Formats: sequence, structure tokens, C-alpha cells
Amino acid sequence: MRKTAILGIGQTKVGEHWEKSLREIGGDAALAAMQDAGVDKVDALFVGNMLSPLVSGQNQLGAFLADWVGLWKQEAVKVEAACGSGAAAFRAGLMAVASGDVESALVVGVEKMTDKAGRDVTAALATAADADYEVEQGVSFVGLNALVMRRYMHEFGWKHEHFASFSINAHANAMHNPYARLHEKITVEKFEKSAMVATPINLLDASPIGDGAAAIVIVPAEKLTRQPRITVAASGAATDTIAVHSRKDPMFLSAAYLSAKQAYDMAGLSPADIDFFELHDAFSIMSALSLEASGFAERGQGIRLGLDNEICIGGKIPVCTRGGLKARGHPVGATGIYQLVEVIQQLRGECDKTQVGGARVGMAQNIGGSGASIYTHILTKEV
Amino acid sequence: MRKTAILGIGQTKVGEHWEKSLREIGGDAALAAMQDAGVDKVDALFVGNMLSPLVSGQNQLGAFLADWVGLWKQEAVKVEAACGSGAAAFRAGLMAVASGDVESALVVGVEKMTDKAGRDVTAALATAADADYEVEQGVSFVGLNALVMRRYMHEFGWKHEHFASFSINAHANAMHNPYARLHEKITVEKFEKSAMVATPINLLDASPIGDGAAAIVIVPAEKLTRQPRITVAASGAATDTIAVHSRKDPMFLSAAYLSAKQAYDMAGLSPADIDFFELHDAFSIMSALSLEASGFAERGQGIRLGLDNEICIGGKIPVCTRGGLKARGHPVGATGIYQLVEVIQQLRGECDKTQVGGARVGMAQNIGGSGASIYTHILTKEV
Repeated sequence: MRKTAILGIGQTKVGEHWEKSLREIGGDAALAAMQDAGVDKVDALFVGNMLSPLVSGQNQLGAFLADWVGLWKQEAVKVEAACGSGAAAFRAGLMAVASGDVESALVVGVEKMTDKAGRDVTAALATAADADYEVEQGVSFVGLNALVMRRYMHEFGWKHEHFASFSINAHANAMHNPYARLHEKITVEKFEKSAMVATPINLLDASPIGDGAAAIVIVPAEKLTRQPRITVAASGAATDTIAVHSRKDPMFLSAAYLSAKQAYDMAGLSPADIDFFELHDAFSIMSALSLEASGFAERGQGIRLGLDNEICIGGKIPVCTRGGLKARGHPVGATGIYQLVEVIQQLRGECDKTQVGGARVGMAQNIGGSGASIYTHILTKEV
Repeated sequence: MRKTAILGIGQTKVGEHWEKSLREIGGDAALAAMQDAGVDKVDALFVGNMLSPLVSGQNQLGAFLADWVGLWKQEAVKVEAACGSGAAAFRAGLMAVASGDVESALVVGVEKMTDKAGRDVTAALATAADADYEVEQGVSFVGLNALVMRRYMHEFGWKHEHFASFSINAHANAMHNPYARLHEKITVEKFEKSAMVATPINLLDASPIGDGAAAIVIVPAEKLTRQPRITVAASGAATDTIAVHSRKDPMFLSAAYLSAKQAYDMAGLSPADIDFFELHDAFSIMSALSLEASGFAERGQGIRLGLDNEICIGGKIPVCTRGGLKARGHPVGATGIYQLVEVIQQLRGECDKTQVGGARVGMAQNIGGSGASIYTHILTKEV
């Protein structure tokens, strides 16, 4: 398999962009990435998106965006794996370059969610769950996560306040990320007092949706000229049952475990080698589960890394260094690309006050559904 | 790029399957392909689908189907390019195997369309067009094709009845395909008298929608053991503007021309080498445009191949040998895989009364939108 590398990145601020259309948001990130890469053309375009058919009445986002950004005639396609669509598209781009069929791929994650009423977006997000066996019962996506969180608290003896450190860390890091949706420091008190969404998940356990796009240009490593040399050390992908109730253990993200294991094996690395971890904190419970399944904590003990400040910049395994889903925001199909862009920013040393010192190996993990589609990527700075 | 080959195929009858759910239809084809391949596991699953979020309230079809067919834990993802989703998923599967990252890929095209009222399906299909600049004006998908057909008739002097041979050929061939939706011979008289849909497109110019699924197992060519050896000689992909009005010439499928050219170049072949052609006859006008853009006829003269019976079994370039979209049916996201399965059936010599004698090189072309995303694949039987 041909080794791949990163030539350019781009992103837009996550927010409520009522003044911009889906194509403008996606186009802004795509053009920024091509400008950063110093190219005005690529061989193929891969778009990660989940909701555009439901929210914007638009399918065929590959051709749709290729047209808008001037990639006329080029191959273009959409890839979807619910909230894991971004990393799924990145992996499709990697495969195309790795196969030798294309010499450059632009991967864009884009989502426009705030044009619709909240209940419509909630219904659209529920399409990530099992329509026949979960949604049919009236459960929402946050409701599913709430059931898992409640069970986790029961099994391992944690209280709601113990989850606060994940959100506090994310909000603190987002203060220094101009692309983040939320710029507001929070405390344990604020966390505990915020409005309930679905017991025990309250507003500060949950990531905000948003409009946004992020983009990456991938090339074969042997053709990469720019410094620092950032290469894709590994790509892992795995699935679990789509319905949470079908899993032997709903508190273990087996697809995270498997995709992380694939990535570690492929890169010849272990969790101890990872300098920082952009994990998928759609809800605070997912931070704990992701850390556990990826080998950073024992079962039921992911929480402790937060309580011990090991997830902060300077800690054992910094997470959500640019704000994570919780504070950078979660434009669902774009999130996986935001995570990878943030890994690349860290490896380039562009993160100022939230820079992970000496960052050489970064990992990103993107989750579709309640753990049904999970992608783990490891990127390294060659020195 | 590692050469790829076909290990197994499966398909379901296209129809109104109210008694079967989306997952059952997709699963039936997937399991049939694995059985035909003699495997009970594959490394990765690629699902081509366009409408499930809109029609079934279901996203994340990769994990959704992997779960159902027992591919627990395996990588799985959905690929979408409107009505070109099937071939887009096939190409993604090819890239994964060609890259060396996986040793086998199952590609499933699946669509369930008939549970909704006709107007809802028409609205859902319109998401293949440009929501901001086409659909916003009130045009439907068949309306767009009608505008192109009317212009073509005006420019090149053809009458409506001249398009009949495409539909007559498709219906005649479908008589011998048990998986086809329509089993009914038609004549020029019937063609001319059928109900108008959007002038000049009438019911017998248009392919019927349907529920259905088809599936293919791809492996590296060097690992293929079964006979006859059917390999993927070439894969081409290109896009055009998503809005028809943005094209310099709306009657020329430039993405068909480009993807076919890529395929011919990659395979080292020319149109004269193609024994038969599974083209995308969503509307009769598309048959003519596809033949012209792919090098089988001069501009405006694709019609003549039909009038001269050159598109029938035994003709110069047989098309829609199993019924095409027109009579096998057009379950949109599944169509591209049906076409490829039919190419493979011909190369295996399994087509009885519609067998193309001595078929060794087959081509399939799958179109997303009104020509915005086009995929051309050439498969060969090694002798």
C-alpha cells in the first residue's frame, strides 16, 4: 500500500451560518485547503456529509461541490457513515491515493444543520440509529446516549459531576481556537446546573450542532515536498451492531477497540506513543468510552483521566485540544475532518496556547451512530 | 495498482416488495453474492444507496447492512452519487482492494422506493438535481430530462417514435430475465400511445422505479480461483456541472465521454472492442446520449443504432441485454450494481436467449443526476 501524506488543510468557523449556503460553506473549506496545499486542481474529491438530503434537499454532494469549487470534470463522490462520515471520506480518499489510481485527493467534510427547526434536526440525526428497532420506539439519538451513560454510572459508581472535566477541558481549549463555535469557559458548578436534555445528559454534556466544513488534500508521501512532513501512519475502520441493544456490552465501544488496534498495528505503535488524541466527545460519556476502548484507561476508569487532569494540555493524553465536538462544535458529517485538521495543526506546531509540546504522533477517532461505525487514524510528523 | 477480479454476484427481483424491509432486500442480495463466491466473510462492505434517509429514515447503511448479514465488526460504509451510487460504491470497493488494504470487498447496491407515495418519491429523486438552482424553480427530475430530449429532437430532427427501439429492445430482453420488474413485450404503437409524463417523455420512455438490491464480491485478481476468470479491466469516473443549464452543451454527456475515455485508455481498448454495453437508460434520450458520448455513434446519431437494430442481441453493440433500467427496473442506488452483475452474467455465459455470443468484453455505464456523476467500467473474461 502506497504511503500517503498531507499537503494542505482548510476549515471554516463552526456556527449558525444562515447567510451562507451548503455549497458556500463546503467550498470555503475546500478552497482554503487547496490554497494551503498550493494547488488549484486535484484528481478526485471525496465529500463526507450526513444530512444534506434531509436538511437541504440535496444529494450527489460530490458533483455538487466539484462544480462549485471549479474541479470541473474531476471524479467526485459522497461518503456517509452518520457522524463518522468525515473520517469515512478521508479513508476513501486514502484508498484512492494508496491504490495509485489518483495522485491527489481533496476530502471535504461539510454539514449545514441550523436552517431547520430543532425538532427537525433531532429527527434527522435519529437516522443514525436503527429506524426499525430504535427510532420506531420513540428514542432520540441523545436518548440512546443517555441510556448508555446512566448504565455506566450505575455499573462503575460514577456521579454526574465526575464527567465535568471532559467538557471543562474542551471549553478551555476552544478559547484559543478561532474556528470553534463556543468561546466560553465553564466550571463544575455551571456544568452541574445546566439544563437537562435527557437524564442524565444535560446541555453541557452534549456537543452543539452547527454549520461548518473542513478539508484536507492528500498526496502520495513520495511526492510531498512541504515541511514539516506529515504522513498518514495508519487508518483503521470497524463496525458494531447499529442498534445499541444488540450489543453484548453497550458500554464497550468494540468498533473503537478494533479500529484503534488496526491503527496501532499498522503504525507499529501503542497507546503510550500517542502524544494527543482528538476523540469524538459528542456526549461526555463518549469521551470516557473512547479512552477506554482505545487503550488509554481500564474499563470504567476513563473518567479518572479527566479527574486527574491527564486529558489537558501537558497531561498524559491531551484530548480535544482545539475544543473537541463539545466546544469547537459538531457539524456532524464534517466533524471527522475537523478532528484530522486539528491533528495536523498540532503536528505543524500551529496551536499556540493549546500546543502539545513536541507533538509528533496524533490520533483522531470519529464515531458514526452510537458506536456503530468507527474510524481511527494516526498521523505522524517525520523528523 | 493491483488488478481486481469478480468472485461472486447476487441480485433480487426488482419490484414492489412491501413485505420486505430495506435490510432484508439488501441482505438477500449480499448473502446471495457471498454464497456464489463461496465465502462467509469479507474484509469490507461498500453500500451504494441514494434514498434511504428520505424514504426509510435510515442513514449509516454500511453498519446497518453489515450487522444484518453477519459481517460483524467489519469495515462498512455507504457511498452516494445519486442514481450513480451503485457504480460509485463498486469503484470505492475496487480502490480498497487495489490499494492492498483489504483482500476482499462486498459491494451492495440497494434501494427501497415503493413504500412512499409517488409524489414523495418524485421529490426525493429531485435531490439528485440542484436544489438551489433547478428544483427551486419547480422542475422535477423527469422534467429536466424532458427539456434535454426536446432540444435533442429539435437539433437533430428526430421524432418521438424514433426513440421507440430503445424501449422495445429493453422490454424484449427483460422477457428472459427473471429478476426484471417488467415482463411485457412492447411495440412502436404501444410506445407512441402510452401516457404522457413530461412532454416529450411518456411512460414508455421512462424507466420504472422499484425495490431491489444487487451485490458483487471483489478480490485481487491473483487470488481468483474460479472459472471463467472475470477481471476488472478498467474503472473510469468523471463529473459534470450538477445543473443542466450550466453546461455548454446540455445534449453532450461530457462525464460519460471522459469516464469512458479513461476506461478505454486504462484497458487499452476502443469502442470497437466492446462486445455489449449495459448503459443507463433511465429515459430513452439517455440511451442515445450515452451511445454518442461513449464513442459508439456520432453526435445526434445514437438513435440510428436503435433504428438499425444494432443495439439488439446479435447487433453491433447490444445494450440493456437483461432489460436495462427501462424493463429490469431502476431501484436508483442499486442500478449500477445490477448493470455490473448483468455484465458478469454475460461474460459467464449465463444469459440463455439473450446471451451475447462469444462475449469477452463488457462495459457498464452508470449515471448520477442528469449526467453529473458518471462511472464507466469494463470487465473482461480472460481466455
